[in-house]
Amino acid sequence: MTTILRINLGRLLSRLETLAQVGAIGGGVCRLALTDEDRRGRDLVLGWMKDLGLDVTIDQIGNVVGVRAGKNPGNPVLTGSHIDTVATGGRYDGNLGVLAGLEIIETLNDAGVVTQKPIGVGFFTNEEGVRFTPDMMGSAVYQGIFKVEDMLAAVGTDGKILGDELKKIGYAGAESCGGKRAASFIELHIEQGPVLENEGIEIGAVEGVQGISWTEYLIKGTSNHAGTTPMNLRHDAGYVAAAISTEARRLALEMGGAQVSTVGVNVLQPGLINVIANEALVSVDLRNTDNSLLQYAENSMADFVDALCTTEGVSYESKNLVRFDPVEFNSDTVSLVTDTALGLGLSVKKMPSGAGHDAQMFAGNCPTAMIFIPSRDGISHNVKEFSTPEHIRNGADVLLQSIIRMAS
Amino acid sequence: MTTILRINLGRLLSRLETLAQVGAIGGGVCRLALTDEDRRGRDLVLGWMKDLGLDVTIDQIGNVVGVRAGKNPGNPVLTGSHIDTVATGGRYDGNLGVLAGLEIIETLNDAGVVTQKPIGVGFFTNEEGVRFTPDMMGSAVYQGIFKVEDMLAAVGTDGKILGDELKKIGYAGAESCGGKRAASFIELHIEQGPVLENEGIEIGAVEGVQGISWTEYLIKGTSNHAGTTPMNLRHDAGYVAAAISTEARRLALEMGGAQVSTVGVNVLQPGLINVIANEALVSVDLRNTDNSLLQYAENSMADFVDALCTTEGVSYESKNLVRFDPVEFNSDTVSLVTDTALGLGLSVKKMPSGAGHDAQMFAGNCPTAMIFIPSRDGISHNVKEFSTPEHIRNGADVLLQSIIRMAS
Repeated sequence: MTTILRINLGRLLSRLETLAQVGAIGGGVCRLALTDEDRRGRDLVLGWMKDLGLDVTIDQIGNVVGVRAGKNPGNPVLTGSHIDTVATGGRYDGNLGVLAGLEIIETLNDAGVVTQKPIGVGFFTNEEGVRFTPDMMGSAVYQGIFKVEDMLAAVGTDGKILGDELKKIGYAGAESCGGKRAASFIELHIEQGPVLENEGIEIGAVEGVQGISWTEYLIKGTSNHAGTTPMNLRHDAGYVAAAISTEARRLALEMGGAQVSTVGVNVLQPGLINVIANEALVSVDLRNTDNSLLQYAENSMADFVDALCTTEGVSYESKNLVRFDPVEFNSDTVSLVTDTALGLGLSVKKMPSGAGHDAQMFAGNCPTAMIFIPSRDGISHNVKEFSTPEHIRNGADVLLQSIIRMAS
Repeated sequence: MTTILRINLGRLLSRLETLAQVGAIGGGVCRLALTDEDRRGRDLVLGWMKDLGLDVTIDQIGNVVGVRAGKNPGNPVLTGSHIDTVATGGRYDGNLGVLAGLEIIETLNDAGVVTQKPIGVGFFTNEEGVRFTPDMMGSAVYQGIFKVEDMLAAVGTDGKILGDELKKIGYAGAESCGGKRAASFIELHIEQGPVLENEGIEIGAVEGVQGISWTEYLIKGTSNHAGTTPMNLRHDAGYVAAAISTEARRLALEMGGAQVSTVGVNVLQPGLINVIANEALVSVDLRNTDNSLLQYAENSMADFVDALCTTEGVSYESKNLVRFDPVEFNSDTVSLVTDTALGLGLSVKKMPSGAGHDAQMFAGNCPTAMIFIPSRDGISHNVKEFSTPEHIRNGADVLLQSIIRMAS
């Protein structure tokens, strides 16, 4: 009988707890990228990497990667995520992926297992994109998608320059960026959505990341008295905004599948009960795993808004704020994750990720996959973010066995 | 050949111009009730009343009424309106009705005409209800609808007590309130809406004032990630608010007639592009001239919101903010206005008022009517408010001839 290697849950939870104390806020964490809290978090994880005997490098954008040698040289099988958080973040988003990576290293160390390929664990700078945009910055630079010079010049919401802040916290490294140095990439992450919990499934094998399209519409109508203006003489920006919102919902339901739509911004001017709105700012967030379907949704909404504004006698400006193509992960690597999970007796489903992750920056350059575990009530970016110890154990065990296979 | 008595347009425009200088702001006026600007406006109009030989009284709520004796004693045929304005008011709203009243007096004086009944011109305290609520306060107290003691205790948006402010500006009069002292009431006012201009009609004979129903709904859903939350697992307060808005529009169009609906407030929390709203505050303003139809609209919306919230798995609270029954003016008095206008060769239509006016407070106690003249682009409560000299002349001439008939 062969005993399957397992991670040490207590050790992993202990590291999660210790890291969560850095920038702790009421059960959650505030550790914005390149702040003093981020420095303290980085110092802690860097110390653990060195304690585990990893060969650590810091690159020019501040990505930190520790590598454990394999029997053969070459690029490592890389895992990891990020340790920066949003302002009211949880303790699992990103951090779990990094610390589970360290736990895999320690488990392999303890068992004296040496893989064929090297194994690396990294944490990538500014995944959240809260203080500095864009998000997933470090992993994108790591994979040569953004230029390091451009990103070092990024200006934060506080007016600070990213390059200066990186130096200030001591993480402006010497290692060059953009070398695409991974044999493959796998990231463990909390789902940040309700699907796994809702369906009672233990592991999500992420097939890809939804494409994202954000459009902002500024509708300009005519402000008039709610009592004295007959319905047929109105140019009501508020009605147009509402109709855009209900159409976005209708379209997503009609399309079905992976299509989702959200109208989270709807600001009316002057915003008074008895005054017809002369202006409305409304956002449309469309996502799909299939780029042609996403384009269909975008075109449908654009046509709808244009026709509606003509009918209502209002003008509008539209602005595309964000557009990411969907990312598809390597199907063999996804199958490796599902096989591994099933082999450990866990329930698994293939699913898209609705949120962006560092892994998507690797997908074009090497075999890439992600492992999701359930998030309680689907809550994330919130101090209430929580995943059970049992789910954390499951996720880390699937990560361990997947990495062993990928590195063999 | 009999010459029909006409008002002096230049004199009326001159008084409008002079009064508009008090609290002037960029072509419009800011003369909030019981401020120093209101005092200066009152002093000016009061002086004109005395110059015209009127017997002026000031009552306990600050209403100012000047009476011109008739051949017989008794209650006067009363005209007038208000001289307080909103913060970004025009120069015609209210002021026209008061100064046209004075112009009628001066025209009669000049012609040496003495009517059978006395004629009165009044301006009523705090019609706008901006600094102190409720609106149409002075006329309501004048007709015994509100108690003067209650209104004197009203607290302004600036924390000041109405009674104190009234004393401070010197308009806490001795005359008692609530005596219903008018034989009949007629008010000239700008339409404040686009109907007359749009139809190319010169005079509106107001048949009554729409009933008003304001309801505020607070929708409570669940905030979640716009990417990771499937459509069927959402409890989107923003969608519910939008659907309420489009339903309010649909219902008004389906009902037709005098029914109007407006959603002017729609505030989402947290109001971020990629976050499903967990809260929405949405207002529904419903108006109709027929109370049973207004009730039907109110019930339809209430049923719709209740069913929708159940379907969407969100909770809600509804709060009725304002409910005024429709007011119907005396049909003989309305016909007197239409006959008078037609007799002067003017086009006229019977129409409801979508806004509240002092006249509605008289309608239950004496024969009451209103005369509307067109507002350019339907704009009011705005410094751009404008009515042409020709329309002002028409309205004042109809007021003059109507009053001569009512006082005979």
